[in-house]
Amino acid sequence: MTVGDMPFPDMPMMAGVRLSSHYCGIRNKPKDDVVLIELPEKSVTRAVFTQNDFAAAPVVVGKQNLADTSHTRYIIINAGNANAVTGQAGIDHARACCQALADIAQVNVAQVLPLSTGVIGEPLPHKKIIDSLPLLYDTTSQDHWLDAARGIMTTDTQPKGATASFQYQGHTVVVNGIAKGAGMIRPNMATMLGFVFTNAPVAASLLDTLSKEAANLSFNRITIDGDTSTNDTCTLTATHTLAIDSIDCVDHPLYAPLRTAIIDVYQALAQAIVRDGEGATKFITLKILEGTNDQECLDVAYAIAHSPLVKTAFFASDPNWGRIVAAIGYAGLTDLDTSKISIWLNDELIVEQGARAAQYTEQAGQRVMNEQAIVLSVTLGRGQASQVLWTSDLSHDYVTINADYRT
Amino acid sequence: MTVGDMPFPDMPMMAGVRLSSHYCGIRNKPKDDVVLIELPEKSVTRAVFTQNDFAAAPVVVGKQNLADTSHTRYIIINAGNANAVTGQAGIDHARACCQALADIAQVNVAQVLPLSTGVIGEPLPHKKIIDSLPLLYDTTSQDHWLDAARGIMTTDTQPKGATASFQYQGHTVVVNGIAKGAGMIRPNMATMLGFVFTNAPVAASLLDTLSKEAANLSFNRITIDGDTSTNDTCTLTATHTLAIDSIDCVDHPLYAPLRTAIIDVYQALAQAIVRDGEGATKFITLKILEGTNDQECLDVAYAIAHSPLVKTAFFASDPNWGRIVAAIGYAGLTDLDTSKISIWLNDELIVEQGARAAQYTEQAGQRVMNEQAIVLSVTLGRGQASQVLWTSDLSHDYVTINADYRT
Repeated sequence: MTVGDMPFPDMPMMAGVRLSSHYCGIRNKPKDDVVLIELPEKSVTRAVFTQNDFAAAPVVVGKQNLADTSHTRYIIINAGNANAVTGQAGIDHARACCQALADIAQVNVAQVLPLSTGVIGEPLPHKKIIDSLPLLYDTTSQDHWLDAARGIMTTDTQPKGATASFQYQGHTVVVNGIAKGAGMIRPNMATMLGFVFTNAPVAASLLDTLSKEAANLSFNRITIDGDTSTNDTCTLTATHTLAIDSIDCVDHPLYAPLRTAIIDVYQALAQAIVRDGEGATKFITLKILEGTNDQECLDVAYAIAHSPLVKTAFFASDPNWGRIVAAIGYAGLTDLDTSKISIWLNDELIVEQGARAAQYTEQAGQRVMNEQAIVLSVTLGRGQASQVLWTSDLSHDYVTINADYRT
Repeated sequence: MTVGDMPFPDMPMMAGVRLSSHYCGIRNKPKDDVVLIELPEKSVTRAVFTQNDFAAAPVVVGKQNLADTSHTRYIIINAGNANAVTGQAGIDHARACCQALADIAQVNVAQVLPLSTGVIGEPLPHKKIIDSLPLLYDTTSQDHWLDAARGIMTTDTQPKGATASFQYQGHTVVVNGIAKGAGMIRPNMATMLGFVFTNAPVAASLLDTLSKEAANLSFNRITIDGDTSTNDTCTLTATHTLAIDSIDCVDHPLYAPLRTAIIDVYQALAQAIVRDGEGATKFITLKILEGTNDQECLDVAYAIAHSPLVKTAFFASDPNWGRIVAAIGYAGLTDLDTSKISIWLNDELIVEQGARAAQYTEQAGQRVMNEQAIVLSVTLGRGQASQVLWTSDLSHDYVTINADYRT
């Protein structure tokens, strides 16, 4: 169940980007669990990775490979096993998968990126992955976007994809992305994997900047349960297949519209993760305004978004705004003058000058709370900074899903 | 339901400490909702209060009154309404209750402390409290500890009390305490109210130190849901009724045993709050050892204690240690060398040198997880600091309780 419908978009094919998906036996159920993505020869790929100190083996290996070359040719993803907290053996296993694919495809091993998602701490059944590589390699196709999006799912209930395109000098510029993630979702990524591609020719250093900027405005602005995963990775690939000049500076006329399209795709994927958040019944947009700086806006946003009491009130469609106020009060802001704070639920003014707004009625609050998508705005009255964060509620299904995940 | 049995102790009477409890109509159900505690004339009282920026009106008034005098004579507590985020009217209402009692008892208004717990943001029905004061005043008794502990409950399922006593130069030194709290429980207090009393004569400045120290080792070391309330308060009263010299320095021979007894009572009350945590089925002691300093030990402890994934795994009795490892990894420690980390569940070594311990078996982990009281120990291998934190799990009942609280 997602919050609102979430149809998989009609993804345009991209020259040279080929995907395949199969079942190799990592999952208990016969559902695809390995995905291969092939990229054209001149592709440039950059990525952002989890900040978790227990970074998984594929994160360690992926970072090393991307340090060696930006010209990634293959991405191998498995679901069902995170290959995290698996020590040197885990790193060896991830490398073995890359080497096996490099041998088949006749590329340098550093041109292969490995990614894993699933249970932490179990040895990766790497031989199953290696055995499936010839079939994966032989069956890639330009129109397997949906299959790939399905193959990387764990507790996701729906595959996640997003696309944007526009015209530029007679060319169609395309941005396609797929992602997975539903729990262990928090700032600095999540158990989320994301793969975004554009056919525009973007130079490596600029692509690196774009990759970080887009992640900061999307995957780093969502939280479901506050748990940052060991495996989070989002790649951004420029396939360089459009026959136009390379974009190597922000003044290039294609840069601005491309940046917008990339951020749009990142945000659509990030929001899809929240809409499919484990047990989510509400999609909540937190807007924190008039802060002194971005960080204090985020501190307030995360205090609200991580409060189990606020989250259960949203689940119950209960306009229990006292819990929101309490969360703001413990966010740790220096010299917070609560009498300057106002709070809105959609367009209903709930709190004014730090106390219940005179005209607020429980009925008005209830009307907003009954909706599936709710915007909670807080003005701090301290400055000009603002931040937006997307989150979900805390339901019985969240507990059920996470109490039963391994059983 | 509490984790394990939690019988209310046999509380010895304390000369001059008299309690009464009645129903004045704040709660929907006819269950006591106002409590009065009378203290003897020479009593000295200090307190610690919530750090929440939206401190409730009784917290504001209580701090002012304690700044005016340590010689508190009366404590008025109501349950069902927090008188928080109620603006100037809330402060006026709290003061009106104090003044009404001061008039009846012929004491200075600053000698009355008001405390409230319950729903945030609703106007305090202060007239109901004021109307009940004559009856409360006339019916105080030295043996109403259990009634008082019941009268201050909100979502608590059991009344909470603790007592300690020992002999000193032919005198029986007594420490009695009652508390309430079950949710919105986090460091820097909680929606918890605590009232601890000793008949020993402790000077005000030393009592202040003891009050802070004991709270730091107890109520500031528990967390249920990470939500710090607007109303948390714990008072510590020395009634000065024992006929011995005043304790005015740490070298006094009574200081050390008294300090131990006071901390014991604080910790017993704090642990009772966790055992009665909303929906709690497990009582978890987190020991973080070998840190560089106390703060990083606490950072790790809170990351684990606040992880919904760790908490749901405890609820499921699932030894899903990967979630514990992930939480340590995002606790934000500088230059954490994960290869030095070991983790135990009770006496089972689970993680060694940052990876699954060689001899660990799922069966052994399961055996520990099936218990109600579990000690999770983490050694960081970085230094000599250590910290202990107590927490509970995240169950369906937690969601039910907090989704239904106001309905």
